[in-house]
Amino acid sequence: MMMTRGGNRLVSSMFKVGPRYLSTATTWTLINENVRCKSTLALGDKEQEEKQAVGGGPTKNEKGINSYWGLEPTKVTKEGGAEWKWTCFRPWEAYKADLSIDLKKHHAPVTLLDKMAYWTVKTLRWPTDLLFQRRYGCRAMMLETVAAVPGMVGGMLLHCKSLRRFEHSGGWIKALLEEAENERMHLMTFMEVAKPRWYERALVFAVQGVFFNAYFLGYIISPKFAHRMVGYLEEEAIHSYTEFIKELDNGSIENVRAPAIAIDYWRLSPDSTLRDVVMVVRADEAHHRDVNHFASDIHYQGRQLREAPAPLGYH
Amino acid sequence: MMMTRGGNRLVSSMFKVGPRYLSTATTWTLINENVRCKSTLALGDKEQEEKQAVGGGPTKNEKGINSYWGLEPTKVTKEGGAEWKWTCFRPWEAYKADLSIDLKKHHAPVTLLDKMAYWTVKTLRWPTDLLFQRRYGCRAMMLETVAAVPGMVGGMLLHCKSLRRFEHSGGWIKALLEEAENERMHLMTFMEVAKPRWYERALVFAVQGVFFNAYFLGYIISPKFAHRMVGYLEEEAIHSYTEFIKELDNGSIENVRAPAIAIDYWRLSPDSTLRDVVMVVRADEAHHRDVNHFASDIHYQGRQLREAPAPLGYH
Ligand SMILES: [Fe+2]
Ligand SMILES: [Fe+2]
Ligand SMILES: [Fe+2]
Ligand SMILES: [Fe+2]
Repeated sequence: MMMTRGGNRLVSSMFKVGPRYLSTATTWTLINENVRCKSTLALGDKEQEEKQAVGGGPTKNEKGINSYWGLEPTKVTKEGGAEWKWTCFRPWEAYKADLSIDLKKHHAPVTLLDKMAYWTVKTLRWPTDLLFQRRYGCRAMMLETVAAVPGMVGGMLLHCKSLRRFEHSGGWIKALLEEAENERMHLMTFMEVAKPRWYERALVFAVQGVFFNAYFLGYIISPKFAHRMVGYLEEEAIHSYTEFIKELDNGSIENVRAPAIAIDYWRLSPDSTLRDVVMVVRADEAHHRDVNHFASDIHYQGRQLREAPAPLGYH
Repeated sequence: MMMTRGGNRLVSSMFKVGPRYLSTATTWTLINENVRCKSTLALGDKEQEEKQAVGGGPTKNEKGINSYWGLEPTKVTKEGGAEWKWTCFRPWEAYKADLSIDLKKHHAPVTLLDKMAYWTVKTLRWPTDLLFQRRYGCRAMMLETVAAVPGMVGGMLLHCKSLRRFEHSGGWIKALLEEAENERMHLMTFMEVAKPRWYERALVFAVQGVFFNAYFLGYIISPKFAHRMVGYLEEEAIHSYTEFIKELDNGSIENVRAPAIAIDYWRLSPDSTLRDVVMVVRADEAHHRDVNHFASDIHYQGRQLREAPAPLGYH
């Protein structure tokens, strides 16, 4: 099945949902759809495996994974026949970030709970500043490994709640899981430009272990608090990315070319730089801030999330 | 932004991915996209709330949720201007189930681990048979509250692994979360046709608590075992739905009309019945069986899931 350029343009105008577009910068084709036959998914040597881990298509090497389950990966190609390299997102999940979003919005902490959330985040910033100082590339990376946890935990808990109560979630499961995926994409992007030190990698293990469990418990006890805290975390993230941009502008950090994955994910032009990437990531964070403060507000008004339709398809 | 019927037909042919189609039976329009303004999401009284929980659009009642985060829900309408009622899935996530899938495929347990997985599932079937006997509607419902757990747990654990190791998942996070969502949709569907008894509702709480933790632990210790077990669970689910169909055919269970949500989700014709629904659900289960046995096979061959591109977009 081939997609013509014209057809694609049509799609992109029809599928515009919030700031997300379907295919504007690139055209792509789907081939090989609906193949359910006996197959051997061949996997290659170490080098190819790594390509595999990022990419997708089976290689021609013999050392394969045997499968009689008939599950062929769907092949997606970009314009010109180049293979779509990413399995973590598909062409129709790429989008243009809304750069017009207000970066200054702040939820003034009023109640005790708000203040606790606020100061928890402020306190956490302190060791972070100390550890990374002005190495914003690594800082962003570490931040994202943490930032991708709340959406996943919240989405999972709402999923389980929906199951055991036999009730709909109002789209919030999807909204929170979308946030988690978006944060993971931030990480996959910064991974390409920053190399963490060995003790930083070790630290991630410890931090994730603690944070995952703490957030899990926190969300069970008070989703109101949990979402508020993430709201403030995102406010800090915006600040941190603003500093990142300053460092890029004054030349302290080299403004390298944008990694390929970022160009495909945010539909950036091929000559984009790290600065462009940080700009769109920051816009994403501002959106997460809004979603999480909003979620907390819903709880503050004595409602459940499912009573207000979730803001879907933004990110 | 309006979608013409012709445009829609074009889309449906372009976006065919596996057995999933974009919009064939219905046309729909997107309006209100990209609205980020000051808003009050008005919520109505109890009755409207319930509609809300299922549906999405804000109602006109004054008793609203205040929000200055500018998050308007994206409004989606079907052909003829009727509102898209579901927030748990969007029109472009609906699909046609692949009814040609082989229902008889079985993974013969060979290794000790396989046998353990097999007998765990067989043992679990015993109390289930006893409890529900031939009340297949309720049985399906209870089954789905359990079936939606493994995908979510596996997806979450792979997500966390991807974060702390700074590596891609090969699409498996998405594949497993898609499975969890699909199972939740099964539940949302059967919810409409079966009324569980009070002690069954209570049982769900207990079973979820135990199963979630057991599967979580199991997946950490041996994903090979965990996926194999789900594979066998799905084989049992296929069997159970086949029995369900028999009961419908011999009239023991009334073949009522298909619930609206099922018609929209699987693109069934408007005059579909419960039998049609059970048919497509069973096809989904056969697909889950393949995915999970395949995942287990990958581990058996000493590989990691991310080394083989995940079967995405099937369900
Ligand atoms: Fe982020
Ligand atoms: Fe964020
Ligand atoms: Fe199911
Ligand atoms: Fe299933």
